[in-house]
Amino acid sequence: MKVTIGILGGGSWGTALALLLANKGYQVDLWVRDVSQCNYMKETRENKKYLPNIKLPDNINVTNDMEEAIYRKNIILLAVPSHAVRETIRKFKMKLRQQPILVNVAKGIETDTLLRISEVVKQELPDIEYTVISGPSHAEEVSKSIPTAVVAASVNKKTAEYIQEVFMTPRFRVYTNPDVIGVELGGALKNVIALGAGISDGLGYGDNTKAALMNRGIIEISRLGKKMGANKNTFAGLSGIGDLIVTCTSLHSRNRRAGIKIGQGASLEEAIRSVGMVVEGVRTTKAAYKLAKKYDVKMPITEEIYGVLYEGKDVRYSVFNLMMRDKKHEMEEIVQKTGFNW
Amino acid sequence: MKVTIGILGGGSWGTALALLLANKGYQVDLWVRDVSQCNYMKETRENKKYLPNIKLPDNINVTNDMEEAIYRKNIILLAVPSHAVRETIRKFKMKLRQQPILVNVAKGIETDTLLRISEVVKQELPDIEYTVISGPSHAEEVSKSIPTAVVAASVNKKTAEYIQEVFMTPRFRVYTNPDVIGVELGGALKNVIALGAGISDGLGYGDNTKAALMNRGIIEISRLGKKMGANKNTFAGLSGIGDLIVTCTSLHSRNRRAGIKIGQGASLEEAIRSVGMVVEGVRTTKAAYKLAKKYDVKMPITEEIYGVLYEGKDVRYSVFNLMMRDKKHEMEEIVQKTGFNW
Repeated sequence: MKVTIGILGGGSWGTALALLLANKGYQVDLWVRDVSQCNYMKETRENKKYLPNIKLPDNINVTNDMEEAIYRKNIILLAVPSHAVRETIRKFKMKLRQQPILVNVAKGIETDTLLRISEVVKQELPDIEYTVISGPSHAEEVSKSIPTAVVAASVNKKTAEYIQEVFMTPRFRVYTNPDVIGVELGGALKNVIALGAGISDGLGYGDNTKAALMNRGIIEISRLGKKMGANKNTFAGLSGIGDLIVTCTSLHSRNRRAGIKIGQGASLEEAIRSVGMVVEGVRTTKAAYKLAKKYDVKMPITEEIYGVLYEGKDVRYSVFNLMMRDKKHEMEEIVQKTGFNW
Repeated sequence: MKVTIGILGGGSWGTALALLLANKGYQVDLWVRDVSQCNYMKETRENKKYLPNIKLPDNINVTNDMEEAIYRKNIILLAVPSHAVRETIRKFKMKLRQQPILVNVAKGIETDTLLRISEVVKQELPDIEYTVISGPSHAEEVSKSIPTAVVAASVNKKTAEYIQEVFMTPRFRVYTNPDVIGVELGGALKNVIALGAGISDGLGYGDNTKAALMNRGIIEISRLGKKMGANKNTFAGLSGIGDLIVTCTSLHSRNRRAGIKIGQGASLEEAIRSVGMVVEGVRTTKAAYKLAKKYDVKMPITEEIYGVLYEGKDVRYSVFNLMMRDKKHEMEEIVQKTGFNW
């Protein structure tokens, strides 16, 4: 079967994946929402705004016509910000003449409904095959063929393996994973911790501090995830701690960069403005905070970051202090649960 | 009871912990092996070689007399390189007039015997109370009071809690942990992966690559650890992934710095020379390789790093390629074990 691919979203990640697929030989239609940006990309054959200095090969067709991008595709890749997923699907769903696989690469939680992206998709397109690709994968590096490993998660093994086949290259390793809930939650919630890591850096703390924050961060994420039906092991994988590491340590990360500004004393608005792109973690912090309440899970780091972003808490007395106050026995939960004799 | 503390080893970590304890008000005897270094530290009241620009307070007594350092102490802190642990204990054990708690902060495996430090200690001092302190804790940062979190592990809960009490400060958080095996293995084996992370950096790979390497690295470490009797959860904690993160991302890490040199084409000897301090990971790679064979555990990253260090394998075709070739399903072991219906 010929693979036909439409990508919705001409940001850095959508463009990087278009490049990857086009370099593999696939014909790709890349929908770019903004008309002038679209025209500029067509003219210059480059995405100067998000991935400068990389030429778009001829088999990427840049278009502003969503219908063209989805027409007769067997894979539709959603690379829009997570808050735009529902509205994007609503724009094209009536026009689908086939049953494509929907591949999502957005990382977030719908703030009002607290739904994961796959749940939003299910409401809008109940019968569609869904796969999420996630993991430590800065677009800038993927576009330069820097070795990268990600997961493709689907409840349908065949679908995951098909997407693995389509996307895999010698420099882009795709692992399959059955745990859509865990992969989606890890990808979304890690942005909250990345804001915290940036705040820690902005305050002038060190590598020790940030490693502790990441470590306690993934532990609270997996605590919530388990209650929401995820497999705990997913958070120890590429889409969990792997993605968290890259987001918290790399300067490519917008969430971390926004956090640095906040740690240095900027307001939330100033921080967002200075990054100049969507900072997913800001919305996700609100969603994570609500999820922690809803599922009655203790998430001390998330709660403190929420306090800093939305309640005017003083950043200096917040994140780190709370992280440090947590519990005294690292293995408390384990000891309690297993009755470990200690 | 008055706490009396002797620290054996005047490297960066021994000195940083001496500072921490002295600043808490304890009298500390700090044994420095090298006579001229000892005299220099006494004169200048500074450890210029390892922790420059930090003044040693008066309640640190720097000494070259091991007997003085261990005399009537109820805590003896071992801060020597792991390969020197046995010989150091042999030098003082006949002179012990009391039964102290031995706190170890060295991270390694005895190359010939494949014993962990606690096992070496048990052979030399069968009845001593033992605690290991480990976690993401670069000495340079601890000496500057940068917020840090570590674990203190002991098979005896009371001992762990006593050590927690003695070492804890508002900027040095100590969690207790019952899993000595897991804490020791995590601390030792992470240095192998740090060499690999350095190699990846030296080759010019990116943050994506390194995050994937760390992630697959901790997974193979915990696979071995489980077979050796550790609790798998320990590797998801501060002394596992936490320590691995800091070692793989910080420029303070000697193992990473040695790896960078190797990735850039230096020989092992050149790399060690350029770092100028003990690079624990080099010996540990040999031990880890042997342990993988002994326990029949697949450790592809460790095996490749062993090949690069000891068998002249070409670094460019080694570490990353193998990491990428591993298995295709991220959750393979989970799926098999739980019979997850996928």
